[in-house]
Amino acid sequence: MYELAINLKSDGKIPLYAQIYEYIRSEIRDGHIASGEKLPSTRALSRCLDVSRSTVELAYEQLLSEGYIEAQPCRGYFAAQIDGLYQIRPQCCSTRKNDARVKETYIYDFTPNGVDLKSFPYNVWRKLSRECLVDDRAELFRLGCPQGEWGLRNAISSYLHQARGVNCTPEQIIIGAGNDYLLMLLCAVIGTQHRVALENPTYRQAYRLFENLSCEVCTVDMDARGMRVDKLETSGADIAFVMPSHQYPLGTVMPIKRRMELLGWAGRIEGRYIIEDDYDSEFRYKGKPIPALQGYDGKGRVIYIGTFSKSIAPAIRMSYMVLPETLCRMYEERCGFISSTVSKVDQLILQRFIEDGYYERHLNKMRALYKSRHDTLLAALREWGADFTVSGENAGVHLLLHFCDGRSEEELIGLAARKGVKVYGLSEYYVEGSREREEAVILLGYANMNEDKIKDAVNLLKEAWKK
Amino acid sequence: MYELAINLKSDGKIPLYAQIYEYIRSEIRDGHIASGEKLPSTRALSRCLDVSRSTVELAYEQLLSEGYIEAQPCRGYFAAQIDGLYQIRPQCCSTRKNDARVKETYIYDFTPNGVDLKSFPYNVWRKLSRECLVDDRAELFRLGCPQGEWGLRNAISSYLHQARGVNCTPEQIIIGAGNDYLLMLLCAVIGTQHRVALENPTYRQAYRLFENLSCEVCTVDMDARGMRVDKLETSGADIAFVMPSHQYPLGTVMPIKRRMELLGWAGRIEGRYIIEDDYDSEFRYKGKPIPALQGYDGKGRVIYIGTFSKSIAPAIRMSYMVLPETLCRMYEERCGFISSTVSKVDQLILQRFIEDGYYERHLNKMRALYKSRHDTLLAALREWGADFTVSGENAGVHLLLHFCDGRSEEELIGLAARKGVKVYGLSEYYVEGSREREEAVILLGYANMNEDKIKDAVNLLKEAWKK
Repeated sequence: MYELAINLKSDGKIPLYAQIYEYIRSEIRDGHIASGEKLPSTRALSRCLDVSRSTVELAYEQLLSEGYIEAQPCRGYFAAQIDGLYQIRPQCCSTRKNDARVKETYIYDFTPNGVDLKSFPYNVWRKLSRECLVDDRAELFRLGCPQGEWGLRNAISSYLHQARGVNCTPEQIIIGAGNDYLLMLLCAVIGTQHRVALENPTYRQAYRLFENLSCEVCTVDMDARGMRVDKLETSGADIAFVMPSHQYPLGTVMPIKRRMELLGWAGRIEGRYIIEDDYDSEFRYKGKPIPALQGYDGKGRVIYIGTFSKSIAPAIRMSYMVLPETLCRMYEERCGFISSTVSKVDQLILQRFIEDGYYERHLNKMRALYKSRHDTLLAALREWGADFTVSGENAGVHLLLHFCDGRSEEELIGLAARKGVKVYGLSEYYVEGSREREEAVILLGYANMNEDKIKDAVNLLKEAWKK
Repeated sequence: MYELAINLKSDGKIPLYAQIYEYIRSEIRDGHIASGEKLPSTRALSRCLDVSRSTVELAYEQLLSEGYIEAQPCRGYFAAQIDGLYQIRPQCCSTRKNDARVKETYIYDFTPNGVDLKSFPYNVWRKLSRECLVDDRAELFRLGCPQGEWGLRNAISSYLHQARGVNCTPEQIIIGAGNDYLLMLLCAVIGTQHRVALENPTYRQAYRLFENLSCEVCTVDMDARGMRVDKLETSGADIAFVMPSHQYPLGTVMPIKRRMELLGWAGRIEGRYIIEDDYDSEFRYKGKPIPALQGYDGKGRVIYIGTFSKSIAPAIRMSYMVLPETLCRMYEERCGFISSTVSKVDQLILQRFIEDGYYERHLNKMRALYKSRHDTLLAALREWGADFTVSGENAGVHLLLHFCDGRSEEELIGLAARKGVKVYGLSEYYVEGSREREEAVILLGYANMNEDKIKDAVNLLKEAWKK
């Protein structure tokens, strides 16, 4: 905790809050308060300086809004990084997962969760937003349909039918503010007395969410074709959470044979369900798009979940879930009263965005953009020709490098970090004690990096990892 | 199910879909298809008419958008009401709770869940929305802080401190898309291994939500002061869900003595919590505003929930939860990864709405508006002077009439309905078998009715209920 010794002048020339603000700002700029250092709480500082708390709050607010300090939930205020290097902006106002003190500075970040926001269609979105709000339509601010507006559900069902081979009517679709919310809602619909099997490695947030809501959770190993159905059968699970079109993080595409086996598993016993998370199926670079598992489901056992977070922008907070008809009725009875989590205005904007053809155009643009980055990255890696193999490169916005030279993931990540390149290890995606693996696997996401950056970053990795 | 016998002309003069649309529209207009009658599915009709399904879908879509038919989730399409009388618009695209066949037509609706949307500050909202979207700020579409944006949380914490006596920092606040979502999130934070006690009668959605998520639920009787703490003590509950400022539906205001008893109950055993739902405390007509229970909580046992659904508009989907510090840490650890359910743009609009003083002005306006309606209703009821007593009239936007003349709630509701006035019985708010009550209690909500309508509706009730 940093102790602040500020000599406040109460001659009224400069407001007190401004003096506090100026002092802290210069201390941070000059490096006297190090990046990541904790600042006193507003309460403590106001007591210490004998000024009102709101004076300190005003100063902190200014510092926050200018980015000199950062607020961390339940922890307080910390000095932000402000050195001259390219800043990796934390995903959130807080950098919760890391201790603020050990922040590192990266020039390039191969995050597998990136979305290129430079290409977000701001003008169109603004135009649609303006148009939607143009009349005094009280209707827009009245509570809407709990499932989401019919018009948007209709647009999504057409899109899903055409682009993903999903068989559904708008009546089966529920719009929700993000996949996490939809999974919570699903738990409220089907109850929490289930055993949910997830792939290992997997999208850990889903695992933790089911766990927090008191579902039993387990993981089932994968082979090159996806989740092993023989192991699923013996796991005792009645719900399987899978990503058949492009598994996260492995990038595995489940072939049709395994899909049919999985559907067979679900169909064998009443009450078994498959949750199909089709999070980034929009982006595929080789061969035809792979239709969703849901499209092969003749028995109403697949719950399909999709999102606009990857294909439009994470912050628009719109996902959707397609329920089989039996679950539709359960939803109606048990959760039909729960209001939609997405505002009507936002739903209307998205509906028009899809219906007027903007979504398709945007997807085409993003596909081309990501394809070019994907090709650049692959070419640079091939040219390098080091002793790693590449996998998961046919879809999505990340790929994996497999190393068998004895170096650990941690080692490789550390070497890259020293050159200013942030890369990610596969281990963190394993639930239940990352099982022993002979190889080290590094994830490289390229959605957020243009071609030049990719080339530079690969060159830095080359230096970092040379033996 | 209505059988449609349409003679389609395929001479190409009028598109097929238009012929289907015209036919069904005129059948509904002429009353040949009665309001509430089920229409054939698009699949069945397309087969029957030997046209493509998309042709039928196009026709239905047109009928839907013009309001001739309504879609009910998982049930299909039904003819809408289209008679000349004032239409009670269904809250949703479907009227799920009633069988569509027994729909009644009302001239006036005393719904206790109303919000006056004519007063929604459209121009300001549009202006702020435009301003927020004005720059190409990628930041707005990047994933935000899971808890909600700091700026909005800061604005809410100032408001809560000033208007509700709530003690909290922005770090304790979580923004979410509606109270239902926040309760789900809370279950994910504290787990579902709890016994939750709710008042009886209560807000039934909360009861059902806890139940669906496999919490144990029970109800605790109320007396004139609110939830009975002696009964709460013996209920075995570790969580109490209460609405101390204005209980729904009874309108009871919990006096300070009972509040302290309730806090005493929570403080006695580690792990007990009180959920304070402060859903409509903005509207109070007599005496000073009553500070929130949270403000008296010295031990960090109160989880405070508030919403903008009542005070601004239900469709903006923004609520907030104030966690005590211990739960903040649990939230961080267990659910800190769950993305916010509210878009950044909406959060920014609301933040400016509060910070620029619009919220306060809007609240003042709504208070005056509701006060006038409240006074008009009370005056009309007093003038009538029939044998009922009034309660719950000092706050919120509804009051209760108590009848002891032997007539049942059902009877009174039916008599009112025959005059075209929709009123609500208290019984439906009781969970666990509405206990025997000697009196019949009718709820009258007035948020949605102007003064003239209130007077007319009371006159109709007078006629309806005269003996």
